[in-house]
Amino acid sequence: MSGVHLPVATFYITYICLMTQPVYSYSALQHFAHAIFVRIGCSDSQATLATEVLLRADLRGIDSHGIARLSGYVRLWEKGRVNCAPDIKTVYETPSTAVVDGDRGLGLVVAPRAMEVAIEKAKAVGTGWVSVKNSNHFGIAGYHAMMALPHDMIGIAMTNASPLVAPTFSIERLLGTNPIAVAIPANEQPPFVADFATTTAANGKLEILQRKNQLAPVGWVQTSTGEPTTNPNETRHGGALIPLGSDREHGSHKGFCLGAWVDIFSAVLSGANYGPWVPPFVAFLEPPDDPVGEGLGHFFGAMRVDAFRPAVEFKKHMDNWITRFRSAKTVDGQQSVIIPGDPEREMQASRLVDGIPLNPKVVEDLTALGQRLEVTFGN
Amino acid sequence: MSGVHLPVATFYITYICLMTQPVYSYSALQHFAHAIFVRIGCSDSQATLATEVLLRADLRGIDSHGIARLSGYVRLWEKGRVNCAPDIKTVYETPSTAVVDGDRGLGLVVAPRAMEVAIEKAKAVGTGWVSVKNSNHFGIAGYHAMMALPHDMIGIAMTNASPLVAPTFSIERLLGTNPIAVAIPANEQPPFVADFATTTAANGKLEILQRKNQLAPVGWVQTSTGEPTTNPNETRHGGALIPLGSDREHGSHKGFCLGAWVDIFSAVLSGANYGPWVPPFVAFLEPPDDPVGEGLGHFFGAMRVDAFRPAVEFKKHMDNWITRFRSAKTVDGQQSVIIPGDPEREMQASRLVDGIPLNPKVVEDLTALGQRLEVTFGN
Repeated sequence: MSGVHLPVATFYITYICLMTQPVYSYSALQHFAHAIFVRIGCSDSQATLATEVLLRADLRGIDSHGIARLSGYVRLWEKGRVNCAPDIKTVYETPSTAVVDGDRGLGLVVAPRAMEVAIEKAKAVGTGWVSVKNSNHFGIAGYHAMMALPHDMIGIAMTNASPLVAPTFSIERLLGTNPIAVAIPANEQPPFVADFATTTAANGKLEILQRKNQLAPVGWVQTSTGEPTTNPNETRHGGALIPLGSDREHGSHKGFCLGAWVDIFSAVLSGANYGPWVPPFVAFLEPPDDPVGEGLGHFFGAMRVDAFRPAVEFKKHMDNWITRFRSAKTVDGQQSVIIPGDPEREMQASRLVDGIPLNPKVVEDLTALGQRLEVTFGN
Repeated sequence: MSGVHLPVATFYITYICLMTQPVYSYSALQHFAHAIFVRIGCSDSQATLATEVLLRADLRGIDSHGIARLSGYVRLWEKGRVNCAPDIKTVYETPSTAVVDGDRGLGLVVAPRAMEVAIEKAKAVGTGWVSVKNSNHFGIAGYHAMMALPHDMIGIAMTNASPLVAPTFSIERLLGTNPIAVAIPANEQPPFVADFATTTAANGKLEILQRKNQLAPVGWVQTSTGEPTTNPNETRHGGALIPLGSDREHGSHKGFCLGAWVDIFSAVLSGANYGPWVPPFVAFLEPPDDPVGEGLGHFFGAMRVDAFRPAVEFKKHMDNWITRFRSAKTVDGQQSVIIPGDPEREMQASRLVDGIPLNPKVVEDLTALGQRLEVTFGN
């Protein structure tokens, strides 16, 4: 496709999106989410932070983890499973480590507080590592990892999550999609920001197929007996998501290793629930009645780059790394190699200007939520 | 298959292996490798360490990284690319971090020395993180990560490697198979030890197919123009290994993220060569003439589990984690979920008793090496 045709195509795509999905300004969503968090008992500062973390998902194009989940958090609060006035504190520590107890707070608030602890420790001794218990879902991992960047630090964030994933050879759902984010600063280039579920496909991608009534590629989902399937709804009938790799021959045992690693660092280190004991995000499912820990768990790391070499040297070489990879020769039809973080950064720049499209079902859900809590939802 | 038939099957498999592959005792290989390392200038203690690290690969069943590579290390030394009397030292540090300069030493020696630095730092401040430059190939990552276990620490090891892997959408080989190992102690259960290349399949598995003249599954290799192929020899004609995930639809961009993460932590943090600048392991290929750093790089981490919670509590929960996952319901025909590290530990126990089978081509190569350096090779 020549460059001349691109604006026309973009126009039509935008037009189609506008026809099917209403668009909301960032500030409208921010105002609404903040008001909802205050209604359920958050302080102004906690509501502001929770809103910022939640909406960063929408800005970066990870729609499944953003405002679409707001009513889910509220339902957890209604069930008494979220404490909106938590006493978040360090309960165990060494110079480079800590365990933070989230006191059943919103993960959206607990996680950045814990990442701040990691950053403070890194300032003091080079690196900081924080495992968190007694928390809830924390939005996108990338938000927390990226908190390290302004400090010229590398940030790492992981979390365990509701069990949806079957380890290789298993038919039981024992792991969450357990994402890992790694954010690495550069100088003239934008930072390297990887943020990915340790499954072949994130659950959010499956939900999109479910809504559109489309088939999933083989390798994303298995049936309740462990057979390959293209039916995205199998996870509602005892099926499971599959670890990154898709099958044993293509390395799904490596994806299982990654998910297990995240689970152990997030929960066995901290004293949270792990594996099949992780409390479900959906309020209509009760947590297991034999918990092995408290809430769900996260893990954060912050490493000062100048704990290894002068920051200016490190960042100059990161510029070189990024430039070399971005300019690699590509397969036919592909403009360039995608550096992790590029698509999300571009999406954020565009959505801050053009607004955030929401699925009509999400709009319906948020409208009902607003009516229930007496907050007007609009764009 | 009923349990009654298993010993018979095992007998025949062993019989077939014995028919086609000569078997060597661990001590015979140990004696030979030690003598070779001394011949090329290693001190007795460095030769002992290099031998132990190298042969751990054979014991654990990762045959591609063991004694089969001995003559490769010798050829690097003959080219002046390995220094067998290195002055390995910490050149930059904070309480929880260090950069170690390997002085062009054998990675087999540099890596455990660097891991010791990480362990000492963890003893002092909870965790230790060491990035290494000016090193060479270090054997299996698992060896170094497992050094943390007797100290009740979690061990992490990564390394970059000769460029063989094309990032998603690229036709250039810009990354190595860049493995990650994570070793986590338990109490009554054996430790969790994940050790895996961040590609769909390790290069060693491809080499096995090349030797046997067998096809590779689609998703392991691409041609020089980025097309899928089943020809395992395509990597010799400009083709490339593929990041874990196999293709974009199945998450190969996540495998790319993992390989990039390993590359940056190992080399951009330390000042080693990264990406396409990593010197090749094979001596007949010259390193790039525009290096961006020194040698290749590794990254190590050690975390005291009691920097997060009492070790006895942590290890009790690891026992529970391992037991729960191992006893998960399985797909038909599969006895149990495989806990990372189980197959390698069982292999090591059996090979210490029954010996180590070597491919006839490896035997031929080692015999020639022995003749050249006047060391007798035998079983």
